[in-house]
Amino acid sequence: MPGPTAPLLGLAGGSADHLAVRRHNLALLVGHLRRHGARSRARLAAETGLNKATVSSLVTELMERGLLAEGAAERGAVGRPGLAVDLHPRALVALGAEIGVDHLAVLATDLRGTPLVEQRVALDAAGMTTQAVLERVAAEVGALAAPLVAAGSTPVGLTVAVPGLTDHESGSVRDAPNLGWHDQPVATPLSRLVGALLGGDADPWPVDVDNEANLAALAELDARADADPQELLLLTGGAGVGGGVVTGGRLLRGARGFAGELGHLQVDPEGLPCSCGRRGCLETVVSLPALLTLAAAAGDPVRDPDVDVLQRLEELRRRAEQGDARTLHALEEVGGHLLRGCASLVNVLNPEVVVLGGWFAVLGRWLAPTLERELAGHVCAPDAGGARIEVSTLGVSGAVRGAALRAAAAVLEDPTLAPLR
Amino acid sequence: MPGPTAPLLGLAGGSADHLAVRRHNLALLVGHLRRHGARSRARLAAETGLNKATVSSLVTELMERGLLAEGAAERGAVGRPGLAVDLHPRALVALGAEIGVDHLAVLATDLRGTPLVEQRVALDAAGMTTQAVLERVAAEVGALAAPLVAAGSTPVGLTVAVPGLTDHESGSVRDAPNLGWHDQPVATPLSRLVGALLGGDADPWPVDVDNEANLAALAELDARADADPQELLLLTGGAGVGGGVVTGGRLLRGARGFAGELGHLQVDPEGLPCSCGRRGCLETVVSLPALLTLAAAAGDPVRDPDVDVLQRLEELRRRAEQGDARTLHALEEVGGHLLRGCASLVNVLNPEVVVLGGWFAVLGRWLAPTLERELAGHVCAPDAGGARIEVSTLGVSGAVRGAALRAAAAVLEDPTLAPLR
Repeated sequence: MPGPTAPLLGLAGGSADHLAVRRHNLALLVGHLRRHGARSRARLAAETGLNKATVSSLVTELMERGLLAEGAAERGAVGRPGLAVDLHPRALVALGAEIGVDHLAVLATDLRGTPLVEQRVALDAAGMTTQAVLERVAAEVGALAAPLVAAGSTPVGLTVAVPGLTDHESGSVRDAPNLGWHDQPVATPLSRLVGALLGGDADPWPVDVDNEANLAALAELDARADADPQELLLLTGGAGVGGGVVTGGRLLRGARGFAGELGHLQVDPEGLPCSCGRRGCLETVVSLPALLTLAAAAGDPVRDPDVDVLQRLEELRRRAEQGDARTLHALEEVGGHLLRGCASLVNVLNPEVVVLGGWFAVLGRWLAPTLERELAGHVCAPDAGGARIEVSTLGVSGAVRGAALRAAAAVLEDPTLAPLR
Repeated sequence: MPGPTAPLLGLAGGSADHLAVRRHNLALLVGHLRRHGARSRARLAAETGLNKATVSSLVTELMERGLLAEGAAERGAVGRPGLAVDLHPRALVALGAEIGVDHLAVLATDLRGTPLVEQRVALDAAGMTTQAVLERVAAEVGALAAPLVAAGSTPVGLTVAVPGLTDHESGSVRDAPNLGWHDQPVATPLSRLVGALLGGDADPWPVDVDNEANLAALAELDARADADPQELLLLTGGAGVGGGVVTGGRLLRGARGFAGELGHLQVDPEGLPCSCGRRGCLETVVSLPALLTLAAAAGDPVRDPDVDVLQRLEELRRRAEQGDARTLHALEEVGGHLLRGCASLVNVLNPEVVVLGGWFAVLGRWLAPTLERELAGHVCAPDAGGARIEVSTLGVSGAVRGAALRAAAAVLEDPTLAPLR
């Protein structure tokens, strides 16, 4: 998660907004501990440039708000060892949900983003009313979080991932063609439903809605925090093709939050019709349906929409491993389209890492090596501008992981959102 | 130009880098004056949150470094009116140069980016050695700047725009196919040549090299400072198609500075061969040669490479104005390709403004209205994500304007680079 990396001091001349400065420095300490792990107050002061008295006061407030806990004495410290402080392992939890075309996933994590409990159920969202879907989301979130609440944890909020364009301001889904949703409020009704189930002091109960691929890109960024990439591109294959772009360490959202529709790069003006109304978008040639059409005859169980998609992908992987010619040929052809689409995006964005998610990851063994090898030959910049191809290790959980990360981010960026206890 | 917008205070506890803090606040004042115009020290203090004594000390230093000058008493001030300070109109000047395929442009501006003197000469750069081109650049820059230096101005540096991939770190051109340059050092040899002509204390004499379209995007951003767009896309048509992307108010450079190759979006896998070695890149269907091939028969003077390109564009404009069917049909066809390319880029980037430069601007009357009208129908986001189509008003000067802006930016972002006098 991005966050402040330099302390802010109160302004001279008495014109300072002292609360804003304190908020900034609270977030600075929490972010430092999240990135670097437990350490003493003295070490926090040395590493952040804040003085010791300020650090002590900030840590006390963060403990009172449930963000930090005191742990073991720090080893190897010079002088009298201080008790190390760290993010509290369980006082505050973040909730994520993903509404997919055929499933609903819910997840609770700690503030570091470590999964505590996860649930994934089949759901025919496109065949239900929005109201029924939201009631189901609330019920699953409630069932997941209730035992945590009973054990003393406080949820800091819920972020919901949807496969479509979302409006952060109003908390609504502008357009999610695969769900059949258009201008549907999500945050407000869910806030009422979840609030009624989980209670707590927050009013309204904090719920946010965001694009699934953007959230998955946040999860990929977080999964690579050690390498700290600043420029990352996620392409995720499913019923459509989702995308998320990170630049300068932050999501590229564009003017109204609609950036990252990478699946709708037009790659062939004479191509197949796309769900977006145009022709020849990248997703018409690299989505899972595009692969399946090439890989199997009509009537083949891998093309049966009633069979779970993960099972069908597993079967495709088995066939590829056994050298099935039709499967391998389909992967080669789709891989060629993916290569050319990636090359265009790399020309525009010059990322450090291109992450393949969704079905591109499940069958990544047959896609990534060719992409990695041939990308440089299709990109203007020497050596493909340094872009590495990486296969997501988050499996189908990227979006829901990103959703929980984003729910946590609100309180990590402004710890005063967590009430004093 | 982006710059700091909040003051930084020295850190408590004595661990502060006071020079860094002072540098930050010097830049804050200069940026504030550049954006908002002349004002008194008292008003600067009130508007920035710095205290009056600090502002006075910073202003004194900035005057000693030649960045600021004192002007008339500020009107309408409460209490005793203070003398207004503003950017010095002429003490420091910024230099820009653009090496084009068939021309060389040089420009001197004040620190606000206002052109003081400009020169554009024909130059067959591709037919000359790099050394000969750089000697010519130095000679033209020297001839342009010498009278300014004689009149007491100090150049803060030179930025050179080139049509290719550049490496900021080494000051070299990695690859400029239209010039035939590959891994050519530019900054170091030019620094020697220009330094020898213009003298001064700086050693090495500050020279930087950057991509022409990126620099032109900076110029477009600066030209719209009143509207303060944060997300802007420039597409510029010429022998190829250049691009620059601004996001969050800053150039999107990517991992190694190679982002923005918008002309190499592949729009048709079976398309024409492109200079980049692939097929069907956007530039194969919307570059000026692509337009000319459609608009005129072989042998038509508008296709004669020996005739100045601006004259040929003028002739095309005349034909379009007179309703010449072939010209209008060519513009319609190329406009359709441009629309689809823009739509893909808008899907990826969700810009607030798409600026058309180069030949797209000269013939913008026949391109922009259709684009503006039809873009929404080709973009996933409702209402084209709010993107406006605008025609550049900078003419052929965008890149050289951006080059001078970038040369000025170095001293605006760190005023201590300007020596005390």
